[in-house]
Amino acid sequence: MVLNVTILGSNSAIPTLKRKPTAQLVNHNERFFLIDCAEGTQIQLRKYRIKMQRIHHIFISHLHGDHFFGLIGLISSMHLLGRKRELHVYAPPLLENILNVQLEASQTELIYPFNFHPIKPDVHDKIYEDEKLIVETIPLDHRIPTCGFLFKEKEGKRKLKKDVVNSLKIPVNEYLNLKNGADYIDSNGKTIKNNKVTDNPHPVRSYAYCSDTGYYEKIIPIIKNVDLLYHEATFAHDMVDVAREKFHSTSVDAATIAKKAEVKNLVIGHFSTRYESSQELLKEAKTVFKHTRAASDGKNYDV
Amino acid sequence: MVLNVTILGSNSAIPTLKRKPTAQLVNHNERFFLIDCAEGTQIQLRKYRIKMQRIHHIFISHLHGDHFFGLIGLISSMHLLGRKRELHVYAPPLLENILNVQLEASQTELIYPFNFHPIKPDVHDKIYEDEKLIVETIPLDHRIPTCGFLFKEKEGKRKLKKDVVNSLKIPVNEYLNLKNGADYIDSNGKTIKNNKVTDNPHPVRSYAYCSDTGYYEKIIPIIKNVDLLYHEATFAHDMVDVAREKFHSTSVDAATIAKKAEVKNLVIGHFSTRYESSQELLKEAKTVFKHTRAASDGKNYDV
Repeated sequence: MVLNVTILGSNSAIPTLKRKPTAQLVNHNERFFLIDCAEGTQIQLRKYRIKMQRIHHIFISHLHGDHFFGLIGLISSMHLLGRKRELHVYAPPLLENILNVQLEASQTELIYPFNFHPIKPDVHDKIYEDEKLIVETIPLDHRIPTCGFLFKEKEGKRKLKKDVVNSLKIPVNEYLNLKNGADYIDSNGKTIKNNKVTDNPHPVRSYAYCSDTGYYEKIIPIIKNVDLLYHEATFAHDMVDVAREKFHSTSVDAATIAKKAEVKNLVIGHFSTRYESSQELLKEAKTVFKHTRAASDGKNYDV
Repeated sequence: MVLNVTILGSNSAIPTLKRKPTAQLVNHNERFFLIDCAEGTQIQLRKYRIKMQRIHHIFISHLHGDHFFGLIGLISSMHLLGRKRELHVYAPPLLENILNVQLEASQTELIYPFNFHPIKPDVHDKIYEDEKLIVETIPLDHRIPTCGFLFKEKEGKRKLKKDVVNSLKIPVNEYLNLKNGADYIDSNGKTIKNNKVTDNPHPVRSYAYCSDTGYYEKIIPIIKNVDLLYHEATFAHDMVDVAREKFHSTSVDAATIAKKAEVKNLVIGHFSTRYESSQELLKEAKTVFKHTRAASDGKNYDV
């Protein structure tokens, strides 16, 4: 089952020709989730050949423009291109009015069902659930109310050991019970332990998105042991004072959080425009946490 | 003195990889005026190496997203990049609130003076004037209140005939009177007619921007004889019924207006995404009005 993240923008604050501001696409088993939506996100989706109409859930971390100015354009294009399926947006409450005043000014009534879900960025909360995935908010430490998002797979069902099941001639109508963990009682009344006929389910995976934030250890229990952490690293560590003042992180901050949270892999991003290349930031982060990579627009990471 | 127009977007409705939605830059003697500002306009400015901080006046024709969704991002980037000089935006009144709610949500107080000038799109009116240029609204026929913009150079002063002025030994302090059209009376009291010592001023030039609009003959007296007309041509003429229904124009409509208004040159643009190439539209327009060109992103036209 696919679980990966495509970076649509890795710059902070403003778009440049090399790096666009923040947006990411999470693909879980061909369900597409958009995180943040800077200006030009719909163009990035086209560039990387991702069909916008396949996105059904959009999560907005906070209301700085470099994280949401592209949303109204994306919503409008979905409308103009004849979308029928519903769209869900999860965002700080003020965004609803921002979208509405723009739709009203253009006298646009969206032709598809649009659902706005206000979130509380300062509360760690479950905001989305389907049969295979949960999304939770991660309260962050930024100038305005901001949260990250934690994508967690749900534990799946146990996997049948096909050969054992066949050799025992277990009837098909028993399969679901076995997958749910029940023991099997054969026609002679003999109990066969579940672990004889099934394997453990696929291990669950998790992805944590943390941008924008200062160095903030309170997120550690929430993101503990995730398979992949995206953490902003706006500055190199020689600018730690500026980072603290602006409620942003340095590459060393990001790596330190990754290390303390014992995550498997770290991707850093949201780079200040002052850095032509992210290599300096990456090198610095790796001195603290080896399994670090630097985001770049269009790159795709398996979780 | 330079007067030219750079097309920043020539598509209608949505951005594609080939064509962005509407925005144009007018350069008059190194004063830069932006007309409309679709999503991604600030990226187009970077792409074509136009310094955003040199733009001081922005004119918005109407509040469909493909003409203004990029404005908040441009305003924000100007702020983040340390702009000091003032910015003037001329637009339908509802835009002011749209900008304000977004600045408030991000708790942004712009660090440069920002002046919003509400315009009345249904009235032909002068909305801008400096010592060399006037900008007027052109009421158009669209689904929501919309106007085009007419850029007109002011008549300059008469030009001294240097050789005549020298041979007559006219004192320097008389020059301004002569440039303003006065006759010269020499030390003997003899009157020398102004046209003996001056030439006519540079001919004034004019540029009319008309998008979005249905076929609308009421604009003809306003745009009569302009040097360059940009007129939308969303559709080819086989889609004239759709054009009428949507208050857009066909390439033949645009060319007919150009012909009736006896303009010197026509540029068509705002092409529907259905047209991969604008060649079909151009060919059709030229059957009605020969001096037609098809806009494409990045192209520059002398007025």
